Amino acid sequence: MIRIGIVGFGNLGKAVFNCVKSFNDLKLVCIFSRRDLKDFDFKNIKVEKYENISCYKNKIDVMIMCGGSKKDLMFQSPEVLKNFCIIDSFDTHAKIFEHYKNLNEVGTSSKKLALLSCGWDPGLFSMMRLLFFGVSNKEPTTVWGNGVSQGHSDAIRKIDGVLDARAYTICKTGILKKVLCGKEENISPQKIHIRKCFVAIKKGASKNIIKEQIKSMPNYFLGYQTKIKFIKQETLNKKHAKLFHGGSVVCGFKTNQNNLEKMHFSLKLESNPDFTASVLLMFARAVYKMFGEKRYGAITVFDVPFSYLSQLKKENLLKKYL
Amino acid sequence: MIRIGIVGFGNLGKAVFNCVKSFNDLKLVCIFSRRDLKDFDFKNIKVEKYENISCYKNKIDVMIMCGGSKKDLMFQSPEVLKNFCIIDSFDTHAKIFEHYKNLNEVGTSSKKLALLSCGWDPGLFSMMRLLFFGVSNKEPTTVWGNGVSQGHSDAIRKIDGVLDARAYTICKTGILKKVLCGKEENISPQKIHIRKCFVAIKKGASKNIIKEQIKSMPNYFLGYQTKIKFIKQETLNKKHAKLFHGGSVVCGFKTNQNNLEKMHFSLKLESNPDFTASVLLMFARAVYKMFGEKRYGAITVFDVPFSYLSQLKKENLLKKYL
Repeated sequence: MIRIGIVGFGNLGKAVFNCVKSFNDLKLVCIFSRRDLKDFDFKNIKVEKYENISCYKNKIDVMIMCGGSKKDLMFQSPEVLKNFCIIDSFDTHAKIFEHYKNLNEVGTSSKKLALLSCGWDPGLFSMMRLLFFGVSNKEPTTVWGNGVSQGHSDAIRKIDGVLDARAYTICKTGILKKVLCGKEENISPQKIHIRKCFVAIKKGASKNIIKEQIKSMPNYFLGYQTKIKFIKQETLNKKHAKLFHGGSVVCGFKTNQNNLEKMHFSLKLESNPDFTASVLLMFARAVYKMFGEKRYGAITVFDVPFSYLSQLKKENLLKKYL
Repeated sequence: MIRIGIVGFGNLGKAVFNCVKSFNDLKLVCIFSRRDLKDFDFKNIKVEKYENISCYKNKIDVMIMCGGSKKDLMFQSPEVLKNFCIIDSFDTHAKIFEHYKNLNEVGTSSKKLALLSCGWDPGLFSMMRLLFFGVSNKEPTTVWGNGVSQGHSDAIRKIDGVLDARAYTICKTGILKKVLCGKEENISPQKIHIRKCFVAIKKGASKNIIKEQIKSMPNYFLGYQTKIKFIKQETLNKKHAKLFHGGSVVCGFKTNQNNLEKMHFSLKLESNPDFTASVLLMFARAVYKMFGEKRYGAITVFDVPFSYLSQLKKENLLKKYL
């Protein structure tokens, strides 16, 4: 059994807690959190303060890092890597290489292994982008949605006068088809997606000012077709609780013989956290195995042969899946 | 530049010949064939008799084996592996493990590397099956078609009295949707597909005997709903020339929190040989690199980390695709 720890107990941490039961070679040992988690039913799983994590050295094989990219993982992942193998879902694209270098340095010296930026995007979608380019020599297109963008929801929530918000990423219709037919290439995300936001505001706050602040937010809404609707907090709670998401990586290319070849990988997820948790847990198996082969430092999904994702031995693997 | 050789010059060999130009790190050195290839425009690429292949030892890095599974690859791949790294698209499922063991033995002793059973199925689809099971703990479903099955066409062609044949794999309607909704699991390929065969026969050959031989062919037609139509060679040439194909690997599963998660990988190919050739050439890069790291014997797509499929160095790989 591979002994698993969870660091951070927000949406993703909870999803890992729930999904780990599906994997019969994984055993959840302990959850580490900075929050007060008294109200949650942990079903006899230990809960520890994050500060005490080093007491579990040699008692946990892989730590699933479930903090947010923005405030947690950049420092938490290297910190935990000093004593444990880890896997995280770091997704601030512009800082991935910096995060990689940092983890690689820490892991090399601590003789532990980190798999960074895992999940579905970055993660499975990244693999598909590499694969599709490798086959076609043409840049694939990534399309997100329809779904809840937690990062964008968070960003709105930080605006003065906003109580709560839910931002959806909507994929414009017809885009997928055009890309698959090889008719569109290098379309910007702004041309593919619409942002739809539901916002609950404080009494007396100005809708116009908030609207303006959302629409002009760089990296998030600026440049996107953004629709904003103000609703009551209770409506938001009732109608916008689900964290569904999805998307596609697509590539349509013509071969030298002028034949059109279409590749399409798509996900449609009722729960983004549940799916991300499942992917992290599958890759935790790979981290455990590769660490067992004395691989230290930092790796990404690009470094993991698929056989490491399976419990099967070679003969069964070939007979069952090849 | 990675020096490429082509062994066998049927549909797949021709496709490799045409597609290799798309890859700027690959250089086609020579084509080996047992056929008389005088009518083809080789554009200054050397053509040699298969018997002379060993003269090219150390002049070619990876041989792309383009023979058929049934009669060629089972003996040709190990033979060529004595002197060269190879990649083949061996797809007789029931014999893959035997082929693997054989190649692994030859490659280990000749200190060469073989990647067997590569292409899109087996190949990319195999990877998706493993991946989808790894995430979901539920068996994914593979659907082929609609398209031309060359392996099945070949198999018919080898029957006594048959001049030529084209076998189509047709996917029954509605299957994909059911599987994605998690409503169907472990459906046999026989329940998903119909085989439709167009066969041209020699004068005097018995339709009934040939029909019986097709329908009772294990691993190919036995157990499938198989429709056979006898047509003239010229009709076959005229109406059944296109080698289109495609299919999907799909998996819909419920998480422990009862959320439905759908995964879908699909290909729609105007030219099966062109696409298979592109996949083989991409993986030839991996064979070359892994051989360079002194990996000998036999591997499959499950042993290849994605980074080996790309020309990019780590930093660019992470920045561009992760």
